[in-house]
Amino acid sequence: MQGLMMQGQLTLTGIMRHAQSNFSEQEIVSVTTDNPRHRYTYGEAFQRVAKLASALEKLGARAGDCIGTLAWNDYRHFELYFATSCSGLVCHTINPRLFADQLIYIIQHAEDRLLFIDPMFVPLIESLESELSAVKGFVVLAPKAQMPKTRLPNVYCYEELLAAEDGNFDWPEIEESRAAALCYTSGTTGNPKGVLYSHRAIALHTYGVLLPDAFALQGCETVMPVVPMFHVNAWSLPYAAPVTGAKLVLPGPKMGCGESLCRLIREEGVHVTAGVPTVWLALQKYLRESALEIPSLQRVIVGGAACPWSIMQEFEERHGVYTHHAWGMTEMSPLGTFNGRVPDSLPAAEAKKRRLKAGRAVYGVEMRIVDDEGRELPRDGIAFGALQVRGPWVCERYFKAETSALTADGWFDTGDVATIDPQGYLGITDRTKDVIKSGGEWISSIELENIAVAMEGVQEAAVIGVAHEKWDERPLLVVVATPGSQPQPQQLLAGFDGKVASWWIPDDCLLVDEIPHTATGKTSKKDLRVKLRDYHWPQLDPA
Amino acid sequence: MQGLMMQGQLTLTGIMRHAQSNFSEQEIVSVTTDNPRHRYTYGEAFQRVAKLASALEKLGARAGDCIGTLAWNDYRHFELYFATSCSGLVCHTINPRLFADQLIYIIQHAEDRLLFIDPMFVPLIESLESELSAVKGFVVLAPKAQMPKTRLPNVYCYEELLAAEDGNFDWPEIEESRAAALCYTSGTTGNPKGVLYSHRAIALHTYGVLLPDAFALQGCETVMPVVPMFHVNAWSLPYAAPVTGAKLVLPGPKMGCGESLCRLIREEGVHVTAGVPTVWLALQKYLRESALEIPSLQRVIVGGAACPWSIMQEFEERHGVYTHHAWGMTEMSPLGTFNGRVPDSLPAAEAKKRRLKAGRAVYGVEMRIVDDEGRELPRDGIAFGALQVRGPWVCERYFKAETSALTADGWFDTGDVATIDPQGYLGITDRTKDVIKSGGEWISSIELENIAVAMEGVQEAAVIGVAHEKWDERPLLVVVATPGSQPQPQQLLAGFDGKVASWWIPDDCLLVDEIPHTATGKTSKKDLRVKLRDYHWPQLDPA
Repeated sequence: MQGLMMQGQLTLTGIMRHAQSNFSEQEIVSVTTDNPRHRYTYGEAFQRVAKLASALEKLGARAGDCIGTLAWNDYRHFELYFATSCSGLVCHTINPRLFADQLIYIIQHAEDRLLFIDPMFVPLIESLESELSAVKGFVVLAPKAQMPKTRLPNVYCYEELLAAEDGNFDWPEIEESRAAALCYTSGTTGNPKGVLYSHRAIALHTYGVLLPDAFALQGCETVMPVVPMFHVNAWSLPYAAPVTGAKLVLPGPKMGCGESLCRLIREEGVHVTAGVPTVWLALQKYLRESALEIPSLQRVIVGGAACPWSIMQEFEERHGVYTHHAWGMTEMSPLGTFNGRVPDSLPAAEAKKRRLKAGRAVYGVEMRIVDDEGRELPRDGIAFGALQVRGPWVCERYFKAETSALTADGWFDTGDVATIDPQGYLGITDRTKDVIKSGGEWISSIELENIAVAMEGVQEAAVIGVAHEKWDERPLLVVVATPGSQPQPQQLLAGFDGKVASWWIPDDCLLVDEIPHTATGKTSKKDLRVKLRDYHWPQLDPA
Repeated sequence: MQGLMMQGQLTLTGIMRHAQSNFSEQEIVSVTTDNPRHRYTYGEAFQRVAKLASALEKLGARAGDCIGTLAWNDYRHFELYFATSCSGLVCHTINPRLFADQLIYIIQHAEDRLLFIDPMFVPLIESLESELSAVKGFVVLAPKAQMPKTRLPNVYCYEELLAAEDGNFDWPEIEESRAAALCYTSGTTGNPKGVLYSHRAIALHTYGVLLPDAFALQGCETVMPVVPMFHVNAWSLPYAAPVTGAKLVLPGPKMGCGESLCRLIREEGVHVTAGVPTVWLALQKYLRESALEIPSLQRVIVGGAACPWSIMQEFEERHGVYTHHAWGMTEMSPLGTFNGRVPDSLPAAEAKKRRLKAGRAVYGVEMRIVDDEGRELPRDGIAFGALQVRGPWVCERYFKAETSALTADGWFDTGDVATIDPQGYLGITDRTKDVIKSGGEWISSIELENIAVAMEGVQEAAVIGVAHEKWDERPLLVVVATPGSQPQPQQLLAGFDGKVASWWIPDDCLLVDEIPHTATGKTSKKDLRVKLRDYHWPQLDPA
């Protein structure tokens, strides 16, 4: 029997209407290249959003077209989020830090009809323009006076486009299953893959993000997303803020600058902020040096990488700020788990252990861990396996892919190896491609590396699996010694005794001058494996 | 273009799985007729839910069947909520306080296949049984030892049914549009009307209820619904608690008893509770008399009727408890608006004014006010009109109705007359059927009554519209004098001078011995109009 409730589609248009009806007087504050502190209200923002939607239509954009953005966090980017999605277009946010060939691939693959670009990215786009055959026009996010000289063809000035419109736009009814936004994820191999978010996925994800044990954003609060708006919809904060009526502070291009972040927090009274660990290192460094206080700040949401305990401690002890771990991925809109406030009654050691975990599944996301045969493993906090997820804001298929991205039984494999404890807390153990498979059992490379880097004489360490005749794979420890020290391989290997099961201990240790890194500074195990492809286990190669 | 995200159906099965995976160790505490303090965990609850689902199947219940419940707030009722909905049945909660003919109508109209009844309602159902041809069996919510003697046919003992099952039940995949629950609303005229909630509506409503500016329930909190589980799904708390992992305290049959509520709050450490104003009067009276403290309690959610300021003040000043107004209706699952915490910076008079309003629309609900011709009125806090709503948890059509319950342009008319201010705060002005339509303009009967009851010598007052030759309708003030006083009608009418527009002032005043009331103690304007049907305006009837 069918229920008899209204269909009420879950769309970003609904979010826009909700903010217009309830929070038209609330502020959005931005740093842009042409204005160090732009401020206006949600009411004014959505008037401009309507103008932008009219302008997009006049520029020939039609329902389903992708509209590319290369822009920082500011009010014009916010306007693009809504003007595109709510008029039936797809907001395709592009990471300007990608390599040129990735940018070309992404823009061509998405067939971006128009590109909206911050002035500082004009030279970058000029250098690629000859390859961007899909793009019919370029709009520079600036007022007339700040328009850069450019040799780009079909260039428009954003503020001129808006000035020509009267703000009357007839928003279409949109089905919730329609595409609203697109974001590419650049894996370590192959071409970037696009995740095509539906209106429904974003609206549901926004409800999930706002749960009291997740972002918990209130209308009386001020939130500053330091995660770029080209990273998975800035973790949905540009949607969550207008849903709650929170004041939104958009920090513009200088998101890695501690001084700039500190000034915004202090001057705008920011309560909640979100970003990757490195920006918090920059902020804390600046705070130490300047001896400034940030009394308004209450919560910092950290994702993208595990947050070191030292950052969490410094926030808490010096500033009274609570740091929350969040975990997710582009394919998950992105939120999967959130580490809410642990009860005050928990003993300190227990609290630390729990807070360093990735958190609990947000309602809407289901998780499981499975072994090599896809059998579910126990949620005991000990067993670890491939982490799989499902739910209404999880990717089902990549953009223009022929086949589903899911397992035969309908789960999305995250590429992570993890534990889940009886309270539902997720512990990320390793990446699937880095875990070492020894005799049918799995060994966490990350856990071994964490032990190794704590040893004397070790500056950097990596553990990779190397093919082994008997055990399929065995762990190999690769170490860069601290300058001036000469650690002995056998001594380093002995350092694992008693810290892990004996069969986890690496079979050999190599001292090297350098371990290869990716562009973002992480260990590149892929390159390390290539570098060591001629390595053989000592006992198999007695010469 | 379609988005490419997983479909992930929004079902109550998803809520059950979420709680099982994450909060299996959290407690549910109940008062029942057979146990003053039953306690078990969500893990144990959902094991029994699976047993109950098997038992329902064995009793012949098939997908789409309605299963009636006449029960108080306890763990067995909680089990029924999930075992029915998650196995494809419809959980039909019935208000045992209804008149016999309404109960018969409702049970027959829903074609309840089985009735699950608390032992105390066995005599009631025995008295109706001959008329309940749809019902194939009666299950008494008790262990074997507490089974009452009964002449009901086909009677089962709840605990015996569960004891026969092993807890292995293969939950079906359910589409989110399917019916999950049914609740009848008894209007003042005509037969009760059923609202048939879909899984989707309940799941989305649960997200809405949990927003940080609404119920804001956290996993570390304890919540006690004092609103009965037969009233619109106890305002969704039996769903919201397992979504968040909050400890759930179900107060059983004595929900109007201040002593019982106080004991539960103190002994179980309740942080959040919800119910109608009268239960808080009972609680506050007991607290004054006993001089007991309720230090754990932080928030009280009040709905069903406007909460008097005196209750809000007493909670705040004596107990440090914040009272929130919520507004909704059976047709809205029920939440429409919620009055979150007002900023501390608001001046006291302004804060009081705002807190007495019904609150702001919860994201998911859209509201508008319209005039007699359905034209939208301004959101200026002054204009008032018929309040209409829409959204995914609003009723589209009553159960078994031939026609839609919506306006031609797709809105649900609430039957309330209201204002909406520029910040989105809703002020309920009157019921549509009670508002007085004078010369094409509306006059609020409630506002006039509030002024009248503050006058000396007035014990009770009602204002109704009476037909008028020139103005269509004019207000008539009806007053019951305070014992011993003899207020003069002309003096009372003069008391409105300067308090309302002159054309709002009633044209006449009648002193009566009694104003009729409904069963729940509210003024029955319907009966008052019948009583005064022969009344004529003095100037039209100079005799």
